[in-house]
Amino acid sequence: MSKTRPISGFPEWLPEEKLVEEELISKIREVYEAYGFTPIETPAVELLSTLLSESTATKEIYQVVRHAKDEPKEEGDLALHFDLTVPLARYVAQHYGALTFPFKRYQLQKVWRGERPQKGRFREFYQFDIDIIARDELPVACDAEVLTVLDKAFEVMAIGRHSLKLNNRKILMGFYEHLGLEEAKRSACIIAVDKFDKVGRDGVLKELLLHQVVGKVAERVLEIASLKLKPKEFEKGVAELKVDSKLFTSGVGEVRELLSLLPPQALERIEVDLGLARGLGYYTGTICEVRLNDFPEFGSAAGGGRYEDLASQFINQKLPGVGVSIGLTRLMDLILKNKLLAVGGKSPAKVLVTVYSEGERPKSNQLAETIRSYGVPTEVFFRAPKLGKQLDYAASKGIPFVVFINSETGVVEAKELATKEQVMVKDLAQWAKELKRS
Amino acid sequence: MSKTRPISGFPEWLPEEKLVEEELISKIREVYEAYGFTPIETPAVELLSTLLSESTATKEIYQVVRHAKDEPKEEGDLALHFDLTVPLARYVAQHYGALTFPFKRYQLQKVWRGERPQKGRFREFYQFDIDIIARDELPVACDAEVLTVLDKAFEVMAIGRHSLKLNNRKILMGFYEHLGLEEAKRSACIIAVDKFDKVGRDGVLKELLLHQVVGKVAERVLEIASLKLKPKEFEKGVAELKVDSKLFTSGVGEVRELLSLLPPQALERIEVDLGLARGLGYYTGTICEVRLNDFPEFGSAAGGGRYEDLASQFINQKLPGVGVSIGLTRLMDLILKNKLLAVGGKSPAKVLVTVYSEGERPKSNQLAETIRSYGVPTEVFFRAPKLGKQLDYAASKGIPFVVFINSETGVVEAKELATKEQVMVKDLAQWAKELKRS
Repeated sequence: MSKTRPISGFPEWLPEEKLVEEELISKIREVYEAYGFTPIETPAVELLSTLLSESTATKEIYQVVRHAKDEPKEEGDLALHFDLTVPLARYVAQHYGALTFPFKRYQLQKVWRGERPQKGRFREFYQFDIDIIARDELPVACDAEVLTVLDKAFEVMAIGRHSLKLNNRKILMGFYEHLGLEEAKRSACIIAVDKFDKVGRDGVLKELLLHQVVGKVAERVLEIASLKLKPKEFEKGVAELKVDSKLFTSGVGEVRELLSLLPPQALERIEVDLGLARGLGYYTGTICEVRLNDFPEFGSAAGGGRYEDLASQFINQKLPGVGVSIGLTRLMDLILKNKLLAVGGKSPAKVLVTVYSEGERPKSNQLAETIRSYGVPTEVFFRAPKLGKQLDYAASKGIPFVVFINSETGVVEAKELATKEQVMVKDLAQWAKELKRS
Repeated sequence: MSKTRPISGFPEWLPEEKLVEEELISKIREVYEAYGFTPIETPAVELLSTLLSESTATKEIYQVVRHAKDEPKEEGDLALHFDLTVPLARYVAQHYGALTFPFKRYQLQKVWRGERPQKGRFREFYQFDIDIIARDELPVACDAEVLTVLDKAFEVMAIGRHSLKLNNRKILMGFYEHLGLEEAKRSACIIAVDKFDKVGRDGVLKELLLHQVVGKVAERVLEIASLKLKPKEFEKGVAELKVDSKLFTSGVGEVRELLSLLPPQALERIEVDLGLARGLGYYTGTICEVRLNDFPEFGSAAGGGRYEDLASQFINQKLPGVGVSIGLTRLMDLILKNKLLAVGGKSPAKVLVTVYSEGERPKSNQLAETIRSYGVPTEVFFRAPKLGKQLDYAASKGIPFVVFINSETGVVEAKELATKEQVMVKDLAQWAKELKRS
């Protein structure tokens, strides 16, 4: 007998926790679909060559190899995807002719990072992404839609107040250009500024120094990075920077248009944070992140942005896109550790029908079937011991109602475990419908 | 630019096909939950040692290794699970103290088989399992519940008529015992008989010969294997076999009890098939399979059975269980190839709101938001070209309704693309509610 032990970085939830995750998934999915995003799913596996062509961190890839290595290889090496963007790019290129553009998809799948085991780091986790991919040109209206949907998803999750941080890569790049930094240095600035939360002001200065960004220029890089503007302050804030750069002006214009297209509730939660950089190389315009107001140290709960060309490595067609990703597993971990949502019962069932004796089981089955037909999940106890044991089971699983058939009168009675209230059920349909609503 | 190509055995669906799969998943899930089965999810990965301890086909395992092999290994080897039963066993043992028994779980996850690429064979596919796990003893009522749920799942999928094949390992083993076969030969008979559909009568006889099961004994092994009984014929059919074996009698008793607990609609679809063997080693009682009446060559669409002890390799507690697995990906493949379900639009949206000009976009956004608030998924067109282009988009994505705001009167009008009927929408709430119901 070998003892079981968890594998570090590969989380799994107890039934009552998984029910919370399912509820979140279903809420997010409903928002995504309400805006016409359609689900797709790609294999867990891509060709290793596909993943390596995009990855900036090849260390993080898990390869997949047959345990039986006795046969000649007939195809390329396989590996588990480390995000959902590379698979999306491959999918869009491969099925290009069968898709209608703009292609709006959502995708909920596990991704894998082949990291060393480290406390608090997930090596398998869910991402819940949306992207809009257009041909040739993608209006800012799409950036606004993605932000609106992301905001709404966090609203319906109801895990506490959140903020939306917004920036535009063109503003940063234009500003750095205005400072006279050549292109390689501009990218280095993005990467340095992105680490502000982790390494602080001095850390960023140190990193800038490595790239010969020093003195007054470094000071100004930090100055813009500390500028946080509410939508109303945006125009004045960027004007005061007095930047002479077409790129900068174009970025400012995009943010202006985006803000004009957001609904009021999203606008209230927006902060234009000129320190938001997001490390990933492929963003070219809008970048955004969701922060949870009560958990500043948690960092980004979701994020994304706009990219000029999704799939240039696969297809000779310009495909600009904009998308965001919710880090569902990390979020679930936070929710469970901080009890941000109530963890309820261990069963989807709302009713347990008891069994008086094995001879009466068919009657209990039939009653349960009737209750189910009204849309109420219902269990029948698996044996016929004394009633107390059956009530204990319902209590232990968090099934709120127990239903009996009175063995003498045949009348159906229902007991609510929380209140200990017991009632005769005269109209089963009515009773079930009320239960379903509650 | 590298061209994309599909990886053999790793299927993926187009958006309109994925929507069909999502619909199936949601229907099956609803049935599973209606009976109080609760979702769990395990990592894609288990320790290789866990999988090898159970697997009869070690060839089929995919190992997972870090692409960067530059660091010392700090843990056991990892591998992708090849079914959901071994992960369930590990889960139940690991979380034993936190679960309430009988533990009724459902699990929808991909599984992976590290096979060589072969036409028509999946190497990644969905299984959709339910199991009931009890402590020490598991009544036949649980077998009946699992069969009832499985039957219902196929009923709601509405992919054509199906049958339930039922047998009991004790009947087979008792019969072989009665024939005087020692234990090793009895198992060999199970494996040989299981191949009847593939290799035919002569093939089975040849395999039996390999195990020195010959002559009249082999004839009788084949005799019972060809016996197919409707529930009403069951008692007479098994009595005529005139078998003197406690094990056989016990198996007959279990089938009798099970049949007495099935609802009429499942009973009608049941056939007790004494030729049903199911290859897997761990079944000890009830075994069952779903067949699709119009696709006999498709074989088993779902199957399962009872096992005496789920997790003896992990925990010193007897955990008998009964469960079934629906091979969802194989089924989807059949459904798509044979058009068993209608493949509809490429978007969950029911309505496209057009945009007259970019200046009018906020109005269109607001109208769409109102329609969504009535539960109707709605898209807003991403640019503001001539109306014809916007209608083309809706038609191409299969979005059934297009909604306009009359630029002169401000009145909302709706056009149904299929009928070309255009109406003024006076009561938006009423119109949306009807659309939601339809």
